[in-house]
Amino acid sequence: MNRRDFLSAAMLAGGAMVLPRAVASGDADPAMAAILRAAQQQREAAIQRIRDWIALPSIAAENLNMPEGAQYMAELARAAGFDSASIVPTDGHAGVFATMDNGAERTLGIYFMYDVKQYDPAEWSSPPLEGRMVDKPGYGRAIVGRGAVNQKGPEATFLAALHAMRAAGVKPPVNIVLVAEGEEEIGSPHFSQVVQRPEVFAALKKAEGIFIPASWQNINGGVNVNLGSKGVVELELVASGERWGRGPKGDIHSSYKAMVDSPSWRLVQALHTLVSEDGNTPAIDGWFENVRPLSAREKALIAEAARAGNEAAQREQLGVARWIDDLPYREALERLASQPTVNIEGLVAGYTGPGGKTVLPGRAVAKLDLRLVPDQTRAEAEAKLRAHLDKRGFTDIETNVSGGYDPTETAEDSRLIRAQLAAYQAAGATAKLNPRLAGSWPGAVFTAPPLSLPAGHFGLGHGSGAHAPDEYYVVDSTNPKVAGITEATMGYVDILYQLARIS
Amino acid sequence: MNRRDFLSAAMLAGGAMVLPRAVASGDADPAMAAILRAAQQQREAAIQRIRDWIALPSIAAENLNMPEGAQYMAELARAAGFDSASIVPTDGHAGVFATMDNGAERTLGIYFMYDVKQYDPAEWSSPPLEGRMVDKPGYGRAIVGRGAVNQKGPEATFLAALHAMRAAGVKPPVNIVLVAEGEEEIGSPHFSQVVQRPEVFAALKKAEGIFIPASWQNINGGVNVNLGSKGVVELELVASGERWGRGPKGDIHSSYKAMVDSPSWRLVQALHTLVSEDGNTPAIDGWFENVRPLSAREKALIAEAARAGNEAAQREQLGVARWIDDLPYREALERLASQPTVNIEGLVAGYTGPGGKTVLPGRAVAKLDLRLVPDQTRAEAEAKLRAHLDKRGFTDIETNVSGGYDPTETAEDSRLIRAQLAAYQAAGATAKLNPRLAGSWPGAVFTAPPLSLPAGHFGLGHGSGAHAPDEYYVVDSTNPKVAGITEATMGYVDILYQLARIS
Repeated sequence: MNRRDFLSAAMLAGGAMVLPRAVASGDADPAMAAILRAAQQQREAAIQRIRDWIALPSIAAENLNMPEGAQYMAELARAAGFDSASIVPTDGHAGVFATMDNGAERTLGIYFMYDVKQYDPAEWSSPPLEGRMVDKPGYGRAIVGRGAVNQKGPEATFLAALHAMRAAGVKPPVNIVLVAEGEEEIGSPHFSQVVQRPEVFAALKKAEGIFIPASWQNINGGVNVNLGSKGVVELELVASGERWGRGPKGDIHSSYKAMVDSPSWRLVQALHTLVSEDGNTPAIDGWFENVRPLSAREKALIAEAARAGNEAAQREQLGVARWIDDLPYREALERLASQPTVNIEGLVAGYTGPGGKTVLPGRAVAKLDLRLVPDQTRAEAEAKLRAHLDKRGFTDIETNVSGGYDPTETAEDSRLIRAQLAAYQAAGATAKLNPRLAGSWPGAVFTAPPLSLPAGHFGLGHGSGAHAPDEYYVVDSTNPKVAGITEATMGYVDILYQLARIS
Repeated sequence: MNRRDFLSAAMLAGGAMVLPRAVASGDADPAMAAILRAAQQQREAAIQRIRDWIALPSIAAENLNMPEGAQYMAELARAAGFDSASIVPTDGHAGVFATMDNGAERTLGIYFMYDVKQYDPAEWSSPPLEGRMVDKPGYGRAIVGRGAVNQKGPEATFLAALHAMRAAGVKPPVNIVLVAEGEEEIGSPHFSQVVQRPEVFAALKKAEGIFIPASWQNINGGVNVNLGSKGVVELELVASGERWGRGPKGDIHSSYKAMVDSPSWRLVQALHTLVSEDGNTPAIDGWFENVRPLSAREKALIAEAARAGNEAAQREQLGVARWIDDLPYREALERLASQPTVNIEGLVAGYTGPGGKTVLPGRAVAKLDLRLVPDQTRAEAEAKLRAHLDKRGFTDIETNVSGGYDPTETAEDSRLIRAQLAAYQAAGATAKLNPRLAGSWPGAVFTAPPLSLPAGHFGLGHGSGAHAPDEYYVVDSTNPKVAGITEATMGYVDILYQLARIS
């Protein structure tokens, strides 16, 4: 099979425009050709695997299908050729641990989440568990469903790569260690228990690095390689008559406000102390003590991103007319990478329905997330928030932390990052180094001592709508710069080879 | 029929312990005896009338059964013997106007609301529209349902008095003018349109005063006669990216907080300016300019209420360990009567479900009610709130007023109040003059010029749980000091006579 045959086969399979150079160019070897054929033949099965997985939502916040989700995750791993896949109990919901010993010199770690974010079917244009195929202008045909891009679609596509290699009779060139959790969307409160299991820790310790499959190609095929991510603490701040000893224990008629204290006002006054007047700078005592400024290299990378980026498109997509302080794009992106935040995710008190209701609520809640940058830590943040509130007399206000992660950092010159860059380059996808993802993931479990692994995200393809209605994952790409499912599958095949051979 | 016969008949009818002295004492006339017999015979029908009405909830905030509710109200009035009962259209939901010309010298105004508060069946121990009969320890058998005490039970009991008089062939000793609305629970935004209709205004102008039937006897049979009530403004304070021109238009991923402003923080900062640090004193510019201090007579009445009241029981009932500033009871009650308030009824922003969700909300809402005292006015309060926010740069924050009332005041020496006191005394119910109800009602429509009518609340009996789950209205009283439905019915008969003959 020569180069033209490869390309023809790829085209016939439907829009496969992005192929690893190792496949698409003349130096493709027979093994790679066989894997591509297998991936093409297994294409419908790979799509169905995503849809079936979407149909079983595991949501830790609602304790929905958690044992079922872990079991399903283990079965998916076994079916993809992992030697063993075991359920790992924790004090919360179980994780999954699987290994595939290919007798290789190097080992790759893979991190999966089997849980998904909550959803409200009323907000969706197709049922969130159906996995309906929908046209996404500019991209192609996509599966719409909760978890489509965050993270079942990309994860299942990684598994499709293993299925294709096995069908082609090709042994992966690296050993693989898979760790999965079901509590990512609640801040991974027990994932470190999975990683710290002796057999899991020992297996991961051999890895060159670890990534979670992701599909973040933009409309021009571009993709970021993240050298780190912010940490986060998610918590509820709760003011209540019960704890305060003032105000009502439950909701009472609002006319009593003249003689009864209000936990809602208590919450507002406590919140007010947490940020600057414009709401943009944390004002928690000592918050910036360990905030490390951006390095010259990080600033240079951001400047390049600002030059190459489409500010207008991003503003349009976010529905934002101007950035904080009317900053120019580069400075806004520097702020995004460098600044810790105190964000209000939600406010809930008293009557929340249509119109009004004359109650004095007995309880008021602010749902917060605190984003952290190096060298802040989650433990430090929790302690400082508590001390800040206590010092101001808000000892009664509860800080119910539901989860969180430390920030992560991965060296630009690690094998994992260099293999990613090589794989993207081979696929013709423009990869930009991003000094720090403003979002958070439990990568610190890997990057922090004692594991100290490079860790990040990798994958071709496109999807969007994580945590939002109509979340989707493109399978048939009509955009020559963006990978469909088969090309993304081959991208996962390629990174195994890149990691195996990189110096 | 002599006095003993009366009492025996009343006892046999089931716990009728409280009877107007005109009935229960030896000077009862045959007409009164006939009315009581009729009320006893119609007792089951009167109870069923309440239950049937509860089964048709009209909720203006949800636009539920509004035309149906007005029609039903008009039919109830016609069935009770009003000469005419007409639907009065407004710019909102319709009111009802009915008159009963009894050829009498004096006229009594009656105010009804046909709407009820929202409810969540999940919070109720019996279905809120069923009107189930339930034992209430210390009181007796009660109807449980939305609207049972607020206000269908007492209102239907007033109608039962008219039914009984008609069945007994006794013409009421006063003419009656009934005005009803269906928007009381959303702040009566259009009720003045009903009252200002020429024929309604002309009819009301002839009245000695007006009251809404109420059933507020406490466990000792005591009842308050309110000489006024606070006013109220209900509104939503809304911060949004849309209006602000900063922050996102919709909810976006919370990681963008580092470069995007937050409407939720904007709301918190605006709220913070509205009250003192302890949340108990309004800090809106000029708020106290027209606040009139309590008079010596008002303070004396409150001191008496504090002496006679059961502070511990009230704390227990409200679930409140201490009053504002640890005030002693008398001062707390003075505060209740005299102080305007800014209360948070509810907070709603972003994600409000279980756990967290990493969003930066595009919109945040605080539901507020502002209680007003003489000589504050609703118009003044709305203007001052707006000016206060504008002055601090919060011009983008919407103040969506959904309704409200001015404060009311009624003279202690008016015929309406003196007739109430006489009727309570006749029934053996201890009545205390309350200088000002801390709650609000649309009485200012009547008490303010050009009508300038005495206006208030009147009724025997007991119910509780207005705006709360398991709202109830006692029909079979087992408490010798508290009226059941038949005694409450006779109380309404009696006040017609008291008003007709008082000097």
